[in-house]
Amino acid sequence: MYIVGELINASRKLVGQAIREQNSEYIKQIAKEQEEAGANYIDVNAGIFVEEEPEYLEWLVKNVQEAVNIPCCIDSPSSVALERGLAAHTKGFPMINSISLEKDRYDQVLSIVRNTDLKVVALCMSDKGMPQTRNERVLIADQLVNSLVKNGVKAENIFLDPLVQPIGTNDTFGIEFIDAVEDIRKAFPEVHFMCGLSNISFGLPERKYMNSIFATMAIAKGLDGLMVNPLDKKMMANIIVAETLAGKDKSCMKYLKAFRKKKFEF
Amino acid sequence: MYIVGELINASRKLVGQAIREQNSEYIKQIAKEQEEAGANYIDVNAGIFVEEEPEYLEWLVKNVQEAVNIPCCIDSPSSVALERGLAAHTKGFPMINSISLEKDRYDQVLSIVRNTDLKVVALCMSDKGMPQTRNERVLIADQLVNSLVKNGVKAENIFLDPLVQPIGTNDTFGIEFIDAVEDIRKAFPEVHFMCGLSNISFGLPERKYMNSIFATMAIAKGLDGLMVNPLDKKMMANIIVAETLAGKDKSCMKYLKAFRKKKFEF
Repeated sequence: MYIVGELINASRKLVGQAIREQNSEYIKQIAKEQEEAGANYIDVNAGIFVEEEPEYLEWLVKNVQEAVNIPCCIDSPSSVALERGLAAHTKGFPMINSISLEKDRYDQVLSIVRNTDLKVVALCMSDKGMPQTRNERVLIADQLVNSLVKNGVKAENIFLDPLVQPIGTNDTFGIEFIDAVEDIRKAFPEVHFMCGLSNISFGLPERKYMNSIFATMAIAKGLDGLMVNPLDKKMMANIIVAETLAGKDKSCMKYLKAFRKKKFEF
Repeated sequence: MYIVGELINASRKLVGQAIREQNSEYIKQIAKEQEEAGANYIDVNAGIFVEEEPEYLEWLVKNVQEAVNIPCCIDSPSSVALERGLAAHTKGFPMINSISLEKDRYDQVLSIVRNTDLKVVALCMSDKGMPQTRNERVLIADQLVNSLVKNGVKAENIFLDPLVQPIGTNDTFGIEFIDAVEDIRKAFPEVHFMCGLSNISFGLPERKYMNSIFATMAIAKGLDGLMVNPLDKKMMANIIVAETLAGKDKSCMKYLKAFRKKKFEF
C-alpha cells in the first residue's frame, strides 16, 4: 500500500500561515509525524499562492527533504512550480501530482516526467470534465495509460486517480468508483492507484468514519494507494486490516505488529 | 441486506441454561432485542442437546415466534428436529439452516424444502470437505444451486454460505472468500448469501474489529446476507455504511437515519 501524507497543503490554515512566515520548524514537524505514522510520500502543495507558488513549493520540498527520509509528492498542475520543487528534491524519486487528459496540463506535466523514473499521479479527467460512471473512468484510464506509456512513462510509475465523487449527490457514486478500480486493476496490473477518498462523504455526517470504510471497500477491489491523513488512526487501522484481509500481509505480521504497538485505534 | 440474529444458540452458556430450565422470558427477551436491533430472522439452535434437540428446537421456535414479528432461521442438520421446529412456526416463511452437498444432509433437508416457499441456507461444502479456494467454492455453489433448482427450490430462496476460513492459517483465505462472493453474485444474480464471518479472525486479536471490516469488504463484492450479533453496534454501523457506499441506500436515507437516531457506534 502506497500512502501519501496529505497534511502539508497550503489550503490548511496553519500550513498556509507557516509558509507565509517561512516557519520551517512547523513544516518539518508535520513531515516527520506523517513519516512516523506510515506515509511513504509527503505531499507538498502551495496552490493557494498563485504568484509565489513556485518559490514556496521549492521551499516546502527543501524543508521536508531535510526532515524525512522519504520522497515528496510534489503537488501542482504547473510545470514551472513542479520544476522548482524538483530541483530541491534529494531523497529518491518523487511523485508528481498530477497529470490528466486535459490538454494543457497533459503537455506541461508530460514534458517533466517523460523518459524519467519519476512517479506520476494521473487523474481520470479530460477536457470533457469529470467521469461519473465506471465505464467513463475506465475509458479515460485506458487513454491515459496507453498515451503515457507510448510517451516514455513506465506503467509501474503511473498512479491512477479514478476521482471520487460525493455519494450525497448520486447513490451510485460509491459503487461506480470501486467497480472502476476493479476494472482498471484487471486491465493494467502494473499500474498503481493514488487518490483521496474524502469527497465521497461531502455533505454527510460522520465523514471520517464513512471515508475509512470506503477505503476498505476500495482495497477489496484492488486499490493500492491512498492520499490520506496518516495521523488519522482509524483510517490507518482500517487500511492495515483491509490489506491483511486482501491477502497482502504475510502471516498477518503487519496486523499483529500494529496490535502489539497499540499504534492504531481498532 | 438480510440479517440473521445469531444469539439464540444453545452453545452460548446462558442460552443453553435457559433452554434446560425452560426459561421462556430469557429467550423471548433476546429475540426481541435482536428484532429491535435490525434482524430480519432469528436463528434458533439447540444442537448441543443431542437427544432433546427436536423437542428443544420446537420450544425455541414457539417462544421466539410469540415474542417477535419476524421469521426464525431454524438451525439443525437433522430433518427430525427441523420438522418439529417448522410445526411451531407461525410468522412468514422461515429459513432452514442448512443444506449442503454432503449426501445425507442434502437428502434429509431437501425433503423438507422442495416445492415449498421456505428459504434455505446452502453451505458450500461437500463430502470432500470444506473448500479453500475461490474456484472450489464457485464449483460447489454451482452444483448446489443447479441441483436445488432442479429439485423444486426457487433460486431466490437459496442463501449460499461460501464458508469463511481463518486467515491466521492462510494469508489468502480472506481474498479467496470475497472473490468467490463476487463470482457467485455474477453467475447467480437471483441467489442470496447468508454466512457468519467470525471464523476469519480465529486465533487473532481484536476479532470483532477484524470481522466488521471483513463484512464491509464482502459487501463491496456483492454479499447481501449476514448471520451476526445484531447487538454489536460497530458491526451494524459498518454494514449500514457499506450498503450505502455499495449503492443500496436511496438518497443515503438509512445512513442518515442511523446517524440521527444515534443507533450505531460510528
